Order: sequence, then C-alpha cells, then structure tokens
Amino acid sequence: MNYDGFFSEDVGSFFRSPVREIFKRVDLSKIYSFAGGYPSAATFPIEDIKSLASEVLSKYGDKALQYGATQGTPELRAAVAERCGVPVEMVQITSSSQQGIDVCTRILVDPGEVILTSNPSYLGAIQSFRSYRADVVGVPHDTDIAEWEKAWRKAIGACIDGGKKIKFLYMIPDFQNPSGETLTLQERSLLVSLAREFDFLIVEDSPYRELRYEGEAVPTIFSLAPERTLHLGSFSKIFAPGFRLGWILGATELLDRIYVCKQSLDLCPPVMDQYMAAEFLSSGRLDANLAKSISLYREKRDLLLSLLERYMPEGVSWTRPEGGLFLYLTMPEGFDSVAFYDKALDAGVAYVAGSFFCTDGSGRNTMRMNFSFLDADRMEPGIRILSSLLKSELLK
Amino acid sequence: MNYDGFFSEDVGSFFRSPVREIFKRVDLSKIYSFAGGYPSAATFPIEDIKSLASEVLSKYGDKALQYGATQGTPELRAAVAERCGVPVEMVQITSSSQQGIDVCTRILVDPGEVILTSNPSYLGAIQSFRSYRADVVGVPHDTDIAEWEKAWRKAIGACIDGGKKIKFLYMIPDFQNPSGETLTLQERSLLVSLAREFDFLIVEDSPYRELRYEGEAVPTIFSLAPERTLHLGSFSKIFAPGFRLGWILGATELLDRIYVCKQSLDLCPPVMDQYMAAEFLSSGRLDANLAKSISLYREKRDLLLSLLERYMPEGVSWTRPEGGLFLYLTMPEGFDSVAFYDKALDAGVAYVAGSFFCTDGSGRNTMRMNFSFLDADRMEPGIRILSSLLKSELLK
Repeated sequence: MNYDGFFSEDVGSFFRSPVREIFKRVDLSKIYSFAGGYPSAATFPIEDIKSLASEVLSKYGDKALQYGATQGTPELRAAVAERCGVPVEMVQITSSSQQGIDVCTRILVDPGEVILTSNPSYLGAIQSFRSYRADVVGVPHDTDIAEWEKAWRKAIGACIDGGKKIKFLYMIPDFQNPSGETLTLQERSLLVSLAREFDFLIVEDSPYRELRYEGEAVPTIFSLAPERTLHLGSFSKIFAPGFRLGWILGATELLDRIYVCKQSLDLCPPVMDQYMAAEFLSSGRLDANLAKSISLYREKRDLLLSLLERYMPEGVSWTRPEGGLFLYLTMPEGFDSVAFYDKALDAGVAYVAGSFFCTDGSGRNTMRMNFSFLDADRMEPGIRILSSLLKSELLK
Repeated sequence: MNYDGFFSEDVGSFFRSPVREIFKRVDLSKIYSFAGGYPSAATFPIEDIKSLASEVLSKYGDKALQYGATQGTPELRAAVAERCGVPVEMVQITSSSQQGIDVCTRILVDPGEVILTSNPSYLGAIQSFRSYRADVVGVPHDTDIAEWEKAWRKAIGACIDGGKKIKFLYMIPDFQNPSGETLTLQERSLLVSLAREFDFLIVEDSPYRELRYEGEAVPTIFSLAPERTLHLGSFSKIFAPGFRLGWILGATELLDRIYVCKQSLDLCPPVMDQYMAAEFLSSGRLDANLAKSISLYREKRDLLLSLLERYMPEGVSWTRPEGGLFLYLTMPEGFDSVAFYDKALDAGVAYVAGSFFCTDGSGRNTMRMNFSFLDADRMEPGIRILSSLLKSELLK
C-alpha cells in the first residue's frame, strides 16, 4: 500500500538526525567515538538511583506510580524553582529538554515564520524548527561585537524586508552545542536589546550551564529579560538522560499555553522519575554528584585539548570551551568533513560533521568533537588516528 | 507584556481538559470520585517495582540511565512484539499512549482535514485532534448495524461533498472511553470496509483491551487490516500510568515517519522505565499482576452495577461494560449534567459530564462514571448521595 497521500504537510520537512543515523551504523563501544553528546556513564549515580527508587516508593507509595500533574509534580517544580530562584508558577517540568524546544516551537511558530539562531546551532532544535516548516535563519558568531550586531541587523532586516515575522531567537549561550563557545554578558545584552527593539521572544537552551570547568558564570538571558525569555533546563547532563526530564522557566501567560499543549502531547512527565529527581536534588546528592562530574569532565577536556595540541597538523584550529561537552574543529577551506567521515569511521574514529549543525549548508570544513563520552584512556589512540588521517588528507 | 501576537494559529484551537480542571479544584481523596480515569492504586505492584529498579540497574547498569533508541529499547520492543504477535519492526514505543494519539495526528492531519470518530469519544484525543485544527466528525453508536452503516455513510458523504479529506477514523473498540461499549466483530469489519472504500486510515486506541471481566475477546481492527491501522497500546492500565509508556503497531512506512517525528519531539521514551516494563513483562510478573487487577476491577464493576440498580431513580439508564474502567449514564432528555455538576460536587460526589466527550455539544443528559479508582467501600455512600440528588433533580 502506498501511504504518500496520507501524510500532513509538516512531514515533507522532517529530516532524520544524521547523528542518530551514525549510531545505527556502528557499535559505539568498538570505535573511538567523539560523535554524539552522551554524558559519561561514569557520572551516573547508579547506587544512588537504586536507593532513590526504593526511597520514593516507600515515601510516596502509589503517588509515584499514578498519573501526575501536567505541570510536573509539586515536589520537583518546587525543587527546580528554588534552585533557579523563580516562583513555582514560572516552572513547567517537561519530558526532556528536547520536548521543551519542540513545545515552544509548537505554540509560537506558524509555517514560514522565522526563528533566528546561531550558525552552527543544535541539530535537534533545527530538526524541530524545520518540522514546523519554520524559516531557520542562522547568524555566525563574531567575537567583534560591533560586527556581530551588524550581522544580526542585516539578517533581521532581510526578514522584515521579506515580510517575514520573526517569532523567536534560539540560543545556547553557555558552552554551545556544537561550538563550545560561551556568550559574554555584553553579547547576551545585545540579543536582549534586539529582541526588545524588534519585538521577538528568546528561547534560551541551557542544558550544559552547570558543567563549568573554569571561569565565572555569566548571567542567563532569562535573568536579563524574564518577560521575553523561555529558559530551558535539563536533568540529562546533571542526573541521567534516561530519565527524560527537563524544565521550562517563563512568564505564566506563556507557560499556560505550554501546559494546555502538554495535556494533549503526553498528559504529564514520567512520575516516578520526577520523584527521584526531586529527592536527588533536594537531598544535596545532585550537587555532590555534579561536583564529581565537573572534575571528571574538566580532566577530559584538558586531555583532549592537549592531545589536539600535540597531534593535530598545521592548519587545524579548535575552540577552547570553558564547560559543556563539545569543542569544534576548523580545517582549512576546501576540506570536506562529510566526505572525510567514512574514511575516519573505517579507521575506527567517529565525529559529527559540522555542516550538519549549519542552517545554510556551510561549515563543510568543521567538525564537532565530544569529550564527555569516550573513556580518557581511549582518547589518545583516537586522536592519533584522526590526526594522521587528517595530515594525509590535508597534504593532498 | 501582552503575548497575544506571539502564538501560532494552532493555539487558538487548544482547549483545556475539563477533567483535569476538576482535579485542580478538589482533593480527590476527600470526595467520592467517579470522575477521572485513574487505575486503582491497589493494582500497582509497588514491591515488584522496588525490586525491578534494583534488578535492571544491576543487569543493565548505565544502559538503563543513558539516552536510548528513539524506537524504544530493543528489550521492550521485542517483549511488546512477542505479546502482540507482530514483527519487532512494526513496534514503536511511545512516551505514553496519549503521545501515540498526538504523533499519529501530527504526521497525518493538516488543518481542516477530517478525523472521524465515535460520538462520544475520548476527550484527550479530541483535544489533540482540535489542537491541529482538524475537523472532528463524531458518529453515535447504533446497535442496529444497518442504521449505523447508514450514519457513517451520511457523515462520510457530507465530508466528501464539502470537499474535505478524511485522514483517519479514531476508535476505541474495546470498553470505550467514555461509553464502556465494545464493538462486535461485524462492526469492526464494517469500519474496515468503509476505510478501504473511502481510502482512509484507522487509529485503533486500545488502552483497556486486556482488562476484560467477562465474555470473549473480539479481534482487533489491526488484525483485520494491519496495512491500514495504527494500533495504540498502553502500559498505564496494566503496569503503572506514572511510567508514561505506550506503543504503536503499524506498517513500517508509517512508523518510519513517527520515528523521525519523535526524534524532535523528545528523542526517546524514558529508558529505565522501559527496562523495568520489559523485565516485568517478560518475567511473567505483568500477567500475574494483571490477573489480580482484573479480579479487583470485576468486583468493582459488579458492585457499581448493583448499586446503580438499587439506588438510581426511574428514567436513568446505563451501559454494562464487559471490561475497562467506565460506564455511561443516560438521564432523561432535558437533564443537564454540566449544570448539575456543582451540586454533586458540593455534596461530595464527582463524575465527568458526558457532553465533554461529545464532538458536537450533545450528550448534556449523560455522564461518565469510573469504577476503577474509588475504593469499593466508598462506592455505596457515593452512589446514595448521587442518586438522591438525581431523584430530586428529576422530580423538578
């Protein structure tokens, strides 16, 4: 039977995650994988979770297994509200921060409307935006703030001239995925001024914020413009991704629409997982575990940076992230990281081609490297293989 | 700040679940509640789940806490495939069967297109359909199959004459929510013939199918027309709703679109919950627990039926479900169960007004009663209060 005539128009704009396609092709444990965005399994508090499961079932009984409130359990909302310093009414618990991205897009964007973002940007967000047939406009980061402002004004101007409504700006200001970059306070303030001047909202995606390995935290965009920002948080990198729990902070008028939407999306987030997360957080175990994760990831980042320094050929440069899970490599112009990928995989090394994160097909000479997942003792052989392949490729 | 100009067009069609609004207003444990569709907490295998959590963390370690496959864990897909007798490629695990409804609508329906359903039908489905601006057309059940066929043909004809495309028919053939009715094999076959004749799909929602208290199981619509049916299953009524796990069975071409959509919706279902569900199922503990649930619910259904028989005034009739969680009361024409609701609640009894489940504002003289949630010993006082209120109302 042919199903072509049955699909909604949105389906024509769906595209598969190339990252997830990579994972289907290979057994990650058998290669040196700098692909993916998986946290290190060493950060998972397995023994804590065993006792948490038993604790919450003893303490809350059937409440932990029954349907829960659409906004999230009162206990988890309160714990997140306290941690983030906002009233509980401004907290919606989501079934993953990916759902946060998706539901914000659903309630805000009609086909053809514009979502501004950085270029490159998070692939899962671009997937969601395109699935609603949004016009995704990416602006590359420029560390010269005057030039960066000029680029934003040009992109915004082009939208306005084209009669296109800009609904929101999507940003990962801390340790961006894929670039690893962090926006300065001045840069964040610029984005807020532009949002106010041109009357659009900001979706601030912040899954890595608590994974800072050096330097001082920069205020969130949400703290600069709470009335205009939907701030997305995640338990995936500070607890365990398998729990599929995140949160949205925002104005109650916006959260109310998200709440009604979530009723028909999935009724409520996973309930026992929420009780465990709340208990983990409020008992202080989350912070203790986070401190260990930070110290592990700092070592791995430092190791990867020193290996790149030692092995990478001339002409290759990379970002030096102050936190998060990724850094971003740039090869000389003309290099094609998509074509190179099969060679690397044949030699046992995986990364994600940078162009997958770009809104306009650019970035062919870039790649994203994850340093959280691969065991530290497997990084050196992986980087040696990759560097030597790159060396012969660049000599061609 | 005024957000009115920011919302997508879909938001204008969102409506809040009146059932969930009821729950916000009252403490369910303090009243006699026949509202809601909550399973009995007595059916939750709390001790099993305590040991399951520990078992899966010991057996699968970090795999139970890491990101999982978008289609679901291989273990749970295989367990569901075996139980349902389908190849594993035809199984997609969802983050609740509500998500199953939502994602089917998302991939199939554009604004203005028609979804056929029974009238009344499941409220959460109507919420999801309307949120995509579908035209929801409901046809009341008629036990005279020739008349029923006539009614379907009339409704379908009106859509075709109006130039409207029918995308799918949504049905809960077993122990329907809210009516409690079950479709005969002949009725199911009729729906399949209509789907083939007029070329639409069928979404068969089957959360209660395994809760049968008497009589023989009728073949699923999916078994009659697997190429044309998306069959939705749920762990909420056979394990625990707090886990937010369901499944979709369907043609691989349809599941492939759902898979790509789910990547951007929430990446994957909750992982540790899936491992627990798979272990619960494949170890036989699910069936043992289900047998106990069935016997408990059978007693509660029988009790409610006998109480209605004993206390309800003349002129009130009700369905006699062979399974599931609900039965449906019909009062004389002119009775208004929406207006009556506040009186009932003041007296300590809750139900859901039948018109909330109707696609066209009909059903004012009906109400849905749940018999799974309220403890058996609280049913008699609840029904006495409700019956005596109804008696005075009907005498007016």
